[in-house]
Amino acid sequence: MVKVNENYLKFPGSYLFSTIAKKVNAYMIENPDKKVIRLGIGDVTMPLSSAIVEALHGAVDEMGAAETFHGYAPDLGYGFLRETIAREDYSSRGCQIEADEIFVSDGAKSDCGNIQEIFDESSIIAVCDPVYPVYVDSNVMAGRTGTYDEVTGKWSKVVYMPCTAENGFVPELPTEAADLIYLCVPNNPTGTTLTRDQLKVWVDYANETGAVILYDAAYEAYIAEDNIPHSIYEIEGAKTCAIEFRSFSKNAGFTGVRLGFTVVPKELVRGGVALHALWARRHGTKFNGAPYIIQKAGEAVYSEAGKAQLKEQVAYYMRNAKVIYDGLKEIGCEVYGGVNAPYIWLKVPKGMTSWEFFDLLLEEASVVGTPGSGFGPSGEGYFRLTAFGTYENTKEAMERLKKMPSLRK
Amino acid sequence: MVKVNENYLKFPGSYLFSTIAKKVNAYMIENPDKKVIRLGIGDVTMPLSSAIVEALHGAVDEMGAAETFHGYAPDLGYGFLRETIAREDYSSRGCQIEADEIFVSDGAKSDCGNIQEIFDESSIIAVCDPVYPVYVDSNVMAGRTGTYDEVTGKWSKVVYMPCTAENGFVPELPTEAADLIYLCVPNNPTGTTLTRDQLKVWVDYANETGAVILYDAAYEAYIAEDNIPHSIYEIEGAKTCAIEFRSFSKNAGFTGVRLGFTVVPKELVRGGVALHALWARRHGTKFNGAPYIIQKAGEAVYSEAGKAQLKEQVAYYMRNAKVIYDGLKEIGCEVYGGVNAPYIWLKVPKGMTSWEFFDLLLEEASVVGTPGSGFGPSGEGYFRLTAFGTYENTKEAMERLKKMPSLRK
Repeated sequence: MVKVNENYLKFPGSYLFSTIAKKVNAYMIENPDKKVIRLGIGDVTMPLSSAIVEALHGAVDEMGAAETFHGYAPDLGYGFLRETIAREDYSSRGCQIEADEIFVSDGAKSDCGNIQEIFDESSIIAVCDPVYPVYVDSNVMAGRTGTYDEVTGKWSKVVYMPCTAENGFVPELPTEAADLIYLCVPNNPTGTTLTRDQLKVWVDYANETGAVILYDAAYEAYIAEDNIPHSIYEIEGAKTCAIEFRSFSKNAGFTGVRLGFTVVPKELVRGGVALHALWARRHGTKFNGAPYIIQKAGEAVYSEAGKAQLKEQVAYYMRNAKVIYDGLKEIGCEVYGGVNAPYIWLKVPKGMTSWEFFDLLLEEASVVGTPGSGFGPSGEGYFRLTAFGTYENTKEAMERLKKMPSLRK
Repeated sequence: MVKVNENYLKFPGSYLFSTIAKKVNAYMIENPDKKVIRLGIGDVTMPLSSAIVEALHGAVDEMGAAETFHGYAPDLGYGFLRETIAREDYSSRGCQIEADEIFVSDGAKSDCGNIQEIFDESSIIAVCDPVYPVYVDSNVMAGRTGTYDEVTGKWSKVVYMPCTAENGFVPELPTEAADLIYLCVPNNPTGTTLTRDQLKVWVDYANETGAVILYDAAYEAYIAEDNIPHSIYEIEGAKTCAIEFRSFSKNAGFTGVRLGFTVVPKELVRGGVALHALWARRHGTKFNGAPYIIQKAGEAVYSEAGKAQLKEQVAYYMRNAKVIYDGLKEIGCEVYGGVNAPYIWLKVPKGMTSWEFFDLLLEEASVVGTPGSGFGPSGEGYFRLTAFGTYENTKEAMERLKKMPSLRK
């Protein structure tokens, strides 16, 4: 009799986004006349820009003709895309990342979830708290996290690094041993960032202890301030301690197109083994390359037209972020994020839990957000709103919030 | 100091297809005037059919307009595709598979590689020998295979089921305990199949012992004979013991488009746990859905126009298979496969190894094939040719083989 992977059975019963979906559906059935505005999930709403649509059509035509048809893609990505990324995302910022250190994939979620496979089962992971759930969940499945405590909301073998208003959302170096350190900057869900100096502390720590930083930079396109690095490789020493994940989902609206990449520098070696070779082997064995037409769309993201159009898209969403940020301030909320990230993180009114605030917002304003506690125990008392709605809906949502009896000053 | 996953270090140094590439490159440099014909790798050469090109263009246009834009896809696949698959691939053959038992993915390679994650680390795997390398390699990475013996070419903890001319390429039930049984039918690389009665033996065995059959049916579109099942669910009892993998790569030319699906019946339970729930959790955590435009292309595979065009594509490749099969017979080779599969499996001349035959074919005919020993120890003495080239090249390759001094009768 085959045995199942019992680590899967350790997950608590309810998932954040399915609980939200159930509550929203119940509300809509009870209130069929109300227009619900969703500022909960981080999915984009603007259509693909014309430069990308054009590239897709062109690549589809190539696939329809024998002379230009493309079969299996190179496992690690087409040279045309890897070289473009190396030049546009790295050389241009003074980072020396070679094209063959870049692994093209179907998205940062897959890579963030899969990367743990190349490390030993005994590795101790450290995560910011609150955080994007995939980092912990993928390690739960691999058996690295111990047991779950329903009361504290913590796994016994995970090092949690609280990021709250009290420490300015800057995680402190772990006092316990940590082998794999997940950092998401700009952060999902808090929308906060680390400066070059703050990030340097982590790079030095990892190089000293032999830990590896798993750096999720999926939101780097939203960085507006000068002292915030777009890549961890802007920090001296990062090439010997960090793997970086990037996504086309949020800078180019590719949530439904699926493209991302991961950088594993060749200098990153642990126990005498180059992690580059392990990830290449993993990628080559369990993945078959991103579709040709999608990689061509990725290339168009860096064309002159593409860059101009996507700058406008990011600006559109960041105008929403400002509407939300300013609106919440006006009501008198404590607000964070929203300046270098499409996420706005607010403190819920005193005496309420994140879920109670969720219910209140839905009841009184028909607005959907995400309870902070869903991202980790230190998210309790916070709430996430996203800037990815339409401008009109975002404005209307804020008007509704301002009129909520329970939020009136 | 983080430790790497040391299972990766157990792999033998050279990979089959990279060794082939090196040899072919060296030959081409030495013989710049010779036209090399590649019948080695299983990649298609015909362009996408017009029904699929049309569907792709239509979906790209949808993605370019706000009203029809699609963001994140449902993790497990769009309903329109899952329902089409359930109807066209299963109901139509009398198999009761529901749409929500079908998980859409970026290809059968990923799913075949990832499926082992939902099973316990102690599981013993059984594979046909020779076989598609991903089954074993993904289990090597997960630490299930013991150590590799360079002399026998075997992993110490893997159950090998020889499939050779001696047993008609029908694997025998394992005498040792086996928890996860990989079956690829029609088989890659041998091109041979199992009849309904032969497959029933395996379904009964798995149900009796509690093993799970991982059934790779990537080549089902090439089945021509009536007594060969297209799906394992045509066999009574399969829903309580089998997971089936399907691909659009070979029936629709999607090697560079990337789409596949996996069926996990809800009745498939081990140790009181429904495997459907585990795979859903794995899929939802480590994958973010196949691109919308690619899923629309998948739907077009089942349209009336799509079906007619793809029937022609399969017929084109199967004409190649016949050219190869008949040509080899004419030379006096022992030949297998090629009737219900795009792969032709031949016995190399007495006294030669698979690699020696590879070198001979390249030297004397500038034709590239794949040495059988690359697929497992029982592949030694055999050789694989594929039907995925152009008709002209395939015909020319066979003319060259017929003129080879060493093969002349």
